[in-house]
Amino acid sequence: MKHISSRDNPAVKALVKLAGTAGKRGAPVLLDGVHLCQAWLQHHGAPDQAIFDVERLSQPDIAALAAAVPDRDCLALDARLMQSLAAVESGQGVAFLVTPPVLDLPDAVDENCVLFDRIQDPGNVGTLLRTCAAAGVKRVFLATGTAAAWSPKVLRSGQGAHFALAIHEHVDLAALLPKLNVPLVATALDGAQDLYAGRLPERCAWVFGHEGQGVAGALLAAARLKICIPHDMAAVESLNVGAAAAICLFEQRRQSLSGGR
Amino acid sequence: MKHISSRDNPAVKALVKLAGTAGKRGAPVLLDGVHLCQAWLQHHGAPDQAIFDVERLSQPDIAALAAAVPDRDCLALDARLMQSLAAVESGQGVAFLVTPPVLDLPDAVDENCVLFDRIQDPGNVGTLLRTCAAAGVKRVFLATGTAAAWSPKVLRSGQGAHFALAIHEHVDLAALLPKLNVPLVATALDGAQDLYAGRLPERCAWVFGHEGQGVAGALLAAARLKICIPHDMAAVESLNVGAAAAICLFEQRRQSLSGGR
Repeated sequence: MKHISSRDNPAVKALVKLAGTAGKRGAPVLLDGVHLCQAWLQHHGAPDQAIFDVERLSQPDIAALAAAVPDRDCLALDARLMQSLAAVESGQGVAFLVTPPVLDLPDAVDENCVLFDRIQDPGNVGTLLRTCAAAGVKRVFLATGTAAAWSPKVLRSGQGAHFALAIHEHVDLAALLPKLNVPLVATALDGAQDLYAGRLPERCAWVFGHEGQGVAGALLAAARLKICIPHDMAAVESLNVGAAAAICLFEQRRQSLSGGR
Repeated sequence: MKHISSRDNPAVKALVKLAGTAGKRGAPVLLDGVHLCQAWLQHHGAPDQAIFDVERLSQPDIAALAAAVPDRDCLALDARLMQSLAAVESGQGVAFLVTPPVLDLPDAVDENCVLFDRIQDPGNVGTLLRTCAAAGVKRVFLATGTAAAWSPKVLRSGQGAHFALAIHEHVDLAALLPKLNVPLVATALDGAQDLYAGRLPERCAWVFGHEGQGVAGALLAAARLKICIPHDMAAVESLNVGAAAAICLFEQRRQSLSGGR
């Protein structure tokens, strides 16, 4: 394994630059930490490159990762260089350089799925991905204007959800609508049906919207069902988008598990 | 209204210093933006001090806030000085210096309430406060080690929930337990009952725990009921604490609104 001690090494410079970016479409990103690297190996095989803290190569979980990657694709860095790549202060001594999958849009969507309509906050996007995966959703569509799914903050709050989901990014949601063979269901504050008032569809395309503006007007107009969560309106105007999505997706799951009782 | 143009003015220096802090117990904090300042006025009356961007004093919402505060407690700052106080880049031209209420623990707790057990992330704490308020909860207890409720990030993600809740901070949860006249209900992964398996108590003390470690062992042991949310365990290990709390609190609310059907 090649060992680098100099901050001026071109490979290190390129990695440091990459560590600060949000991940453009089809561009490589850095996965930081043991858990994310293990998950990548399991789901996608070897990374483009594996980068290790030279002082921690003997740690069993790190050694196992190193053994799983061809030696020519491994780099060992001095601890202080490794630290400059870590997304959080307590770096775990390993990062993978990977190219996230860029998925073609399916011709038709027949399954339960979730549309992210310009959700801005990386923490919200990561939490929402995690909630989708936990609720058994397998496919999500992120509109252009949504925080980048493979950015460090979204990866961190996703807690591995990225590997349980087919994630379509930079999607034109208007162009997706004709492909939906399941009803579009949007959360809304006005003119909406109480979440608990009727039976939710077994499969649908949920759309959750921008933190300030909510779901875009054109999508609301196209929705077969508009849903509101009955809450204490005197206390707060609305729920956080991640909380609202959790309530909706798990109410659908509850109804499905209980046969709609 | 006093107008200050110099960054070296002692009052400005003190405010800039305060704007960067998380808010110690009983210490003043800066509320940033029109919405939070309006909410403070409505619930607590005049602030200790109101600080305005001198260039925006003619804006109707800002002017209304200035009119509601005694002139001796108002400061007008040059725009660039005001900017250095704002928690977000797009400052709204107004901030209130306030002393958040420090509440004594009640002798007995008979109402539905929520305990925060060392929740670290300010965004999670703010979202959780917002969810509690939306679910109709009126009182929350934040253990020592939880992110400071009146810090800028928590205020921002709380979206006004702070004014709909009695917030007890720096609470020793073990010392609180004997005061609870409602059952303690904890979320747990092991040895827990399915959230949907039975009727939830109409009123209880929910406890939600640390992002990594979950609810502390002593609290789990004291819980009358341990609840798990049935989710796709193959996809992700667990839910974000804010998502889990939203699902639990709104399932309790659903049961309560429907008379337990």
